[in-house]
Amino acid sequence: MEAERIYNFNPGPAVLPLEVLKEAQAEFLNFNKSGMSILEISHRAKEFEAVLAQAKADVKELMGLGDDYEVLFIQGGASLQFAMLPMNYATKEHPGSYVLSGSFAEKAYKEAQLLGVGTVAASSKESGYHHVPQQDELKIDPGAAYLHLCYNNTIYGTEYHYIPETSGVPLFADMSSDMLSRPLDFSKFDFIYAGVQKNLGPAGVVLVVAKKSLLEKTADQLPTMLRYNTFYKKDSLYNTPPAFCIYMVGKVAAWIKAQGGLAVMAERNAKKAKLLYDVIDQSNGFYNGHADKDSRSFMNVTFRLPSEELEKKFVEDAKKIGLGGVKGHRSVGGMRASIYNAMPYEGVQKLADFMASFQNAHE
Amino acid sequence: MEAERIYNFNPGPAVLPLEVLKEAQAEFLNFNKSGMSILEISHRAKEFEAVLAQAKADVKELMGLGDDYEVLFIQGGASLQFAMLPMNYATKEHPGSYVLSGSFAEKAYKEAQLLGVGTVAASSKESGYHHVPQQDELKIDPGAAYLHLCYNNTIYGTEYHYIPETSGVPLFADMSSDMLSRPLDFSKFDFIYAGVQKNLGPAGVVLVVAKKSLLEKTADQLPTMLRYNTFYKKDSLYNTPPAFCIYMVGKVAAWIKAQGGLAVMAERNAKKAKLLYDVIDQSNGFYNGHADKDSRSFMNVTFRLPSEELEKKFVEDAKKIGLGGVKGHRSVGGMRASIYNAMPYEGVQKLADFMASFQNAHE
Repeated sequence: MEAERIYNFNPGPAVLPLEVLKEAQAEFLNFNKSGMSILEISHRAKEFEAVLAQAKADVKELMGLGDDYEVLFIQGGASLQFAMLPMNYATKEHPGSYVLSGSFAEKAYKEAQLLGVGTVAASSKESGYHHVPQQDELKIDPGAAYLHLCYNNTIYGTEYHYIPETSGVPLFADMSSDMLSRPLDFSKFDFIYAGVQKNLGPAGVVLVVAKKSLLEKTADQLPTMLRYNTFYKKDSLYNTPPAFCIYMVGKVAAWIKAQGGLAVMAERNAKKAKLLYDVIDQSNGFYNGHADKDSRSFMNVTFRLPSEELEKKFVEDAKKIGLGGVKGHRSVGGMRASIYNAMPYEGVQKLADFMASFQNAHE
Repeated sequence: MEAERIYNFNPGPAVLPLEVLKEAQAEFLNFNKSGMSILEISHRAKEFEAVLAQAKADVKELMGLGDDYEVLFIQGGASLQFAMLPMNYATKEHPGSYVLSGSFAEKAYKEAQLLGVGTVAASSKESGYHHVPQQDELKIDPGAAYLHLCYNNTIYGTEYHYIPETSGVPLFADMSSDMLSRPLDFSKFDFIYAGVQKNLGPAGVVLVVAKKSLLEKTADQLPTMLRYNTFYKKDSLYNTPPAFCIYMVGKVAAWIKAQGGLAVMAERNAKKAKLLYDVIDQSNGFYNGHADKDSRSFMNVTFRLPSEELEKKFVEDAKKIGLGGVKGHRSVGGMRASIYNAMPYEGVQKLADFMASFQNAHE
């Protein structure tokens, strides 16, 4: 069974650490001697409370954050966060200010716009989203409720390599595709969230790590499930949480810790990304990377080939040798290799070798 | 491992069919020869599309519904549905009308109230929620956008045994705790929803089965993720769905079909419930059932003992012999045995025998 697994370059849901999958499989019928599957255990049971507490503690430890931050688990995907953020924090007087760096950044902005509480601080749309806006491009309204970034742009393969200076405006970031992939001074952010299905677990939960001072705001006029405060007050247990997803995120966080933490992840991820970017850079234009060099993502490597015909063949040939999910998003075209924390070096090496031989054969 | 599993009477998350758990465990590292775990497969992949399509088809087949209904999968629990229903369908002129039959019915009403679009058609609160309001208690406003029921009240152990006649007002029901437990004329309902973690799968998704005519309504003023139309137009794939939960619901639906469908479920569930209600009725008051006889639930059997001391001992002694999760909800006290589809007859028989011997020992 295991030998038949492929290298999975899908953008999300995405590859998970094999050790984690095996652990979950082994205890699938009887979690922690409870006599029940983790799928069957009450969210009010001490066994699940321990899972939740450990997951939260590990995430905060990995991020190096203290008691002024809290971890929440919320359903609905980052797409629901796009609405909840402006509903909870933005007003017409103090709008949310958005940096547009790709499709999901745009989607986040659109939800604020719908409520009439969104402005744009910068955009790289006109130039085709080849880079993320740099500090000198940001026009930050000092009265903004927050500055919102999409820190890694899965579709375009771009990523921030700096933390914006905001002069006191709270910094919010969607880190769905690079959460826990590298050490950052997370204390410079006020609100971080991530749909976990890319780097942290199975689809079905969003990890929120935010300043308690923000989560304490009440927003009583909003529906109960759309207030961050509801999740904060009840430790993400106001209603039945997506228990299995939280359990898996906990296992992945423990795995990252056991591997050596975010510094080790960053080192591995940089090495993996370099393998592919080197092939692109040394291909004399056969492979054409989408991202500008200063904005290249360590998580999603996007590139085009000389023709759509060759791109189609690339996907087919890759699949034949166990390299799956390399087709790019329709809005960029070409290829995308997602090389999250759980993608082993060997998989990326195999893809790099394949790219070189494919070029040789078709140049 | 299997031998060490307990009989799990938890109200939700709850027991799942052992065959289903074993199947999921066996293919956990490699789903359907894809070389990936079901947790790692793209929601745009043909393998997942097949899972989604089959789950939807099986649910509709079990319910005997035709092309005028559609099946959706939405995150956030029934608690988010409590808000989405009035947001999408109720107005001040045409409010949602609620039948209050327990805690979750109240919670649903409160979200409509918050928006100023909720009224009460009937309530059994004053009499302690011992029964569900009967047809002659319902004061249905003919201008209401819908009449909302909670069809089984998990906490109080009551269940509807009739389908209200509404004179044309659309009938909406939260069936979180009795969905697919018995055949009903589901075509009399316009909108049915269920948090799946009681009778249908692991926590993390709500199954919606509703008339297409309702789902076609656009509600463009609402945040994208709070419009039913968003899910309807994109076949529940507007954003990444909770793929594993949908996969498990599909497996449970297939299991119900293989057992013989809803008629077989209903027969088994009635037999199991009778075992416990008979012990209660023949206990000369040692066991005091909460629900009035005409409103007794086939899913959650609630009862008190003569003292809280005995109730504590009952829970402890039950646990010692592998009967878990029998403690009742704090708002009712006493015991609650949840005996959903997946609870085997043998488990309920063991509990009934234990109840009889516990009475003998402590009367």
